[in-house]
Amino acid sequence: MPDRRTAILRAAARTVSHRGVRGLRVEEVAAEAHVSKALIYHHYGDRAGLLRHTLDFINDRAGRYTGQHSGPDRPAGARQALERSLLLEFQDVAEVRENSIAWGELRASAVFDPRLRDDLARAGRLWVREVADLLGRVRPGWPDPALVASAERLTALVEGLSTRWLSGMLPTERARGMLREGVAVEVEHLDRPPRREPLGAMPRRPVAACTFD
Amino acid sequence: MPDRRTAILRAAARTVSHRGVRGLRVEEVAAEAHVSKALIYHHYGDRAGLLRHTLDFINDRAGRYTGQHSGPDRPAGARQALERSLLLEFQDVAEVRENSIAWGELRASAVFDPRLRDDLARAGRLWVREVADLLGRVRPGWPDPALVASAERLTALVEGLSTRWLSGMLPTERARGMLREGVAVEVEHLDRPPRREPLGAMPRRPVAACTFD
Repeated sequence: MPDRRTAILRAAARTVSHRGVRGLRVEEVAAEAHVSKALIYHHYGDRAGLLRHTLDFINDRAGRYTGQHSGPDRPAGARQALERSLLLEFQDVAEVRENSIAWGELRASAVFDPRLRDDLARAGRLWVREVADLLGRVRPGWPDPALVASAERLTALVEGLSTRWLSGMLPTERARGMLREGVAVEVEHLDRPPRREPLGAMPRRPVAACTFD
Repeated sequence: MPDRRTAILRAAARTVSHRGVRGLRVEEVAAEAHVSKALIYHHYGDRAGLLRHTLDFINDRAGRYTGQHSGPDRPAGARQALERSLLLEFQDVAEVRENSIAWGELRASAVFDPRLRDDLARAGRLWVREVADLLGRVRPGWPDPALVASAERLTALVEGLSTRWLSGMLPTERARGMLREGVAVEVEHLDRPPRREPLGAMPRRPVAACTFD
């Protein structure tokens, strides 16, 4: 017997990718998953609970396609691992598009709904930390705030490109090319010796802003 | 007598900034603008027409606060003009936040609604062109595709940062600092002579000891 919780969450992810977070209706998820509304309420309490678990499900799934790799496909070096982890966000694969749509929806909804912000901020900090660690392996010796700043720019670039990609304005190969070049530009930046002077009119960043729990 | 069309569009922009494009109801705009629903339908035909004109209104308004400047405030050079035009997207000013929310909503909605894509793609291309032209004034002599690629990255960065800013996860000053640094990194990139090799084939350079303060 298939796991009905997984079936519900998979159906919810698919529904979000068709209608958005704000269009999510429990009836529709029930129909899509071939279960009763009552079963969904039994497992997840209410629509908000279902939404929260759907986002966890999406997050776990994303971890599988952008995370650590082993076997013959394992990237040879840190630069490849960095590129790969970002490029895997842009794939012509239904599951990847669904995830990307759901995250975009969550971000867009958080503008209007403060309750979504904590989960989103936590996931965002973890992602920035992962990318900063990969950058630190590509160019060791840079102070952490510089790596975090580069990682914040790269993750914001992925988010900015993803909306253009999802709405069909940016083809997959072009999105991947732009991202690869964005990585190259940031690595180039880290190739320069760190400056004594602040970069341009770069404001001094409070250390607390770069600290991750 | 105040211009009632302007009052309607201003009310619609405010409503979008509170509820999103998908939450826009003609009744609510009518109440906010102190006009009848019938007057709105008379001027704009239907909800889609109202939405399209609201986006034009928002776009014109954005042109006023990020566009050409004259008088004592006029930026001294091309680099300042470039920074300024991008930094003005992040201001603690109700009108600027409203515009940013409305554009974010339009982008997020275009993932589900192909009818919005043409207007959005056209506005996006114009914006990239403007930024590419400013970059060309900062670093003349670069081939246009390289300037356009830099401009696409910078505009995607603005869009990625704006969602974090609007949901309160990124303070205004930090958003501006990150963008200023993003401009510096792109200009640094254009400081290097154009490559014959693709960026991916970049040679490794030794990393200087870290003297960052």
